[in-house]
Amino acid sequence: MAAAAATVVVRRMHDLCGADPARRFSPFCWRARLALAHKGLAVETVPWRFTEKAALRDLSGQEKVPVLRDGDRVVSDSWAIAEYLEDAYPDRPSLFGGPGGRALARFVGLWADATLHPLIASFVVADIPEHLAEPDRAYFVASREQRYGKPLAAVVAGREARVEEFRRAALHPLRLVLRERPWLGGADGPNYADYTVFGGFQWARCVSAFPLLQPGDPVHAWRGRLLDAFGGLARRVPAEDAAG
Amino acid sequence: MAAAAATVVVRRMHDLCGADPARRFSPFCWRARLALAHKGLAVETVPWRFTEKAALRDLSGQEKVPVLRDGDRVVSDSWAIAEYLEDAYPDRPSLFGGPGGRALARFVGLWADATLHPLIASFVVADIPEHLAEPDRAYFVASREQRYGKPLAAVVAGREARVEEFRRAALHPLRLVLRERPWLGGADGPNYADYTVFGGFQWARCVSAFPLLQPGDPVHAWRGRLLDAFGGLARRVPAEDAAG
Repeated sequence: MAAAAATVVVRRMHDLCGADPARRFSPFCWRARLALAHKGLAVETVPWRFTEKAALRDLSGQEKVPVLRDGDRVVSDSWAIAEYLEDAYPDRPSLFGGPGGRALARFVGLWADATLHPLIASFVVADIPEHLAEPDRAYFVASREQRYGKPLAAVVAGREARVEEFRRAALHPLRLVLRERPWLGGADGPNYADYTVFGGFQWARCVSAFPLLQPGDPVHAWRGRLLDAFGGLARRVPAEDAAG
Repeated sequence: MAAAAATVVVRRMHDLCGADPARRFSPFCWRARLALAHKGLAVETVPWRFTEKAALRDLSGQEKVPVLRDGDRVVSDSWAIAEYLEDAYPDRPSLFGGPGGRALARFVGLWADATLHPLIASFVVADIPEHLAEPDRAYFVASREQRYGKPLAAVVAGREARVEEFRRAALHPLRLVLRERPWLGGADGPNYADYTVFGGFQWARCVSAFPLLQPGDPVHAWRGRLLDAFGGLARRVPAEDAAG
């Protein structure tokens, strides 16, 4: 009597959050989240907190977000997720714009990881604990202070002065290209290269009111366009720096 | 009586040289030279020296190399040349691997210009004058010392200590991607993204014996593969740093 049931694809992504489950602040989860939106793929996100490592281990055999479950497939690591989505959904809008774009998107992501993320962390890391509840707060502070070898307050010390150099030098290559066109990935719209760099800025604004970018900077305007993309997906989450 | 003459395409590129016309050391000319080789396009290079600005003005309305004349078309600026070649010769091997690769190759070039070139210059600029004859030598020293606001010897001072940080930090994103695969532009072979970064290293080795790269570094091995590409096109020119 019943018609054949449509196949229901369970698509779930574990996504780092704070005490407020709506505060999603992982730069790597934002890469995956926007990649899914770019492909037009609905996803149920699962709020995940730093100390819930067992849940990830059971699911994916490792302990870091993002982890995407797409039907029977489980993929962890934002870059692996991007490549998986591009290959599994070739008829959806491309994340890379061809094989050359895929290769260089990896370079752009590694550039962001190596160059932007450590600097962004040095401006905002001390603002993260106030958005966490126990036991995550204690875990975060202890693990990061061990990594830095100093208190988080000392890591961010002098940020008002240091941010000038960050804006001038670290963002310079990005600014040069955004002076020429609206998106890093091309003239027609954003792609994974944009999302991979945007993740770091979204991380910062979700946890800190410290102004990384200044109005009038093409990088600031580009961030605003990405906050507006996909119906304001990235703008809607709780954030401290509202200046988009 | 005579058969219809085949159309002879005059393809010439003005290419910066030193006192020795075979010493070609412009990073931007190397980008264009390798782009032409990638497309399998023969080119006659015209040795050009810093003070021969009138020749470029007459040809192209501006004063910098590279300038490519391809039949009736004159194109200056290495990025404009790469885009021109990709569009004019679409049936030849692609320089970019698609629209996404084209967009990001521009970012990679601007990253190299903004990040690598000033540092490379700070290691090798004082070694350039000895490869120039008058009046280029006097022009080069005066114009660069004015730009830096100090003698060229002072610009390169302390380079043995500074190069450690250059290798560790500035080259880090490049090294991360070259640990994963042989070329910046992809797995299958080099493309314009590789040439645009390689230009800076080739500039250095053509004028200076100062070792920018160390054997064992994936960046060193990648440079060696590019020196070998196209029958050793880049290895054949006079150079000071022979360690490929």
